Amino acid sequence: MRVLGIDPGSRITGYGIVEQQGSRLLHVDNGAIFTDRASDFPERLRLIFEGLSRVIVEYRPEAVAVEDVYVSDNVRTALKLGQARGAAIVAAVHAAVPVFEYTASQVKQAVVGQGRAGKEQVQKMVKALLGLPEIAQADASDAVAVAICHLNSYRLRRQAGPAVVASRRASSWRNYTP
Amino acid sequence: MRVLGIDPGSRITGYGIVEQQGSRLLHVDNGAIFTDRASDFPERLRLIFEGLSRVIVEYRPEAVAVEDVYVSDNVRTALKLGQARGAAIVAAVHAAVPVFEYTASQVKQAVVGQGRAGKEQVQKMVKALLGLPEIAQADASDAVAVAICHLNSYRLRRQAGPAVVASRRASSWRNYTP
Repeated sequence: MRVLGIDPGSRITGYGIVEQQGSRLLHVDNGAIFTDRASDFPERLRLIFEGLSRVIVEYRPEAVAVEDVYVSDNVRTALKLGQARGAAIVAAVHAAVPVFEYTASQVKQAVVGQGRAGKEQVQKMVKALLGLPEIAQADASDAVAVAICHLNSYRLRRQAGPAVVASRRASSWRNYTP
Repeated sequence: MRVLGIDPGSRITGYGIVEQQGSRLLHVDNGAIFTDRASDFPERLRLIFEGLSRVIVEYRPEAVAVEDVYVSDNVRTALKLGQARGAAIVAAVHAAVPVFEYTASQVKQAVVGQGRAGKEQVQKMVKALLGLPEIAQADASDAVAVAICHLNSYRLRRQAGPAVVASRRASSWRNYTP
């Protein structure tokens, strides 16, 4: 099972590919698409869509996981982020890869075992879980985290059926520690 | 000069194709993509992207015009609309068609000659300008309006150069009346 996690943004879109082999998690790749250089906003969306389309062709993930962000501050920001997110999701569905959405607290729960964990805790745990010395880019690290969250939920759905997933999600996570 | 106007929405995306022939405006087609039937949100985005991609392949517009909406009420709504808008814009830029954005008041100014015109006035004027008895769908009508707005601005940019456009936009519109 190979998952592409995406952290979409109008300036930087992070991505991470994580694979499950038996009970082990394997880091395949991570990176970020920088769109600041684009001349206008539609061009930024093109860079996101075509960048992720290339990642999908190269790594052939079986699922895409995206964090279902909630922007509390500003409608204008939400509209921009929404467009980046739309471009990212379309890259997946157009390539016939199913998309799964997780809330920030689901991701934190899956990675740290605590829905209110801080950003730094998540980054530290992502590195530890995958045995990586460093993930250069914060958005790429967030993308890897949501990929891990999907693999976690997916495995639990298969093992336990939907009814038990919610209660088992946090504690069973530790099985993945390399 | 053939323009595809788009009015993106997470439930209904309207589109309209308008052509300029000399000083005349010609209605080519209009329609709407209904996404309510989709099983989930990513699937809706796929329908928007692939629906508009088909329209672009069929009609080969030289430009795409989109209204730059401002959602004042709700961040959640803005995020949804943003994703629909992202899917729509990506359909254009991925097909290498340039995208132009206009504010609601620019569209009203171009179609009615008054930046604060009501929705009904715009719909009435769109029909009158194109000599159409009816446009069945409100979002399709809005899409046609933004296409007209682009043709108007484009013609003025060519004729008068950027410096004069703003002041001429409203009054010169009447030249187009069929």
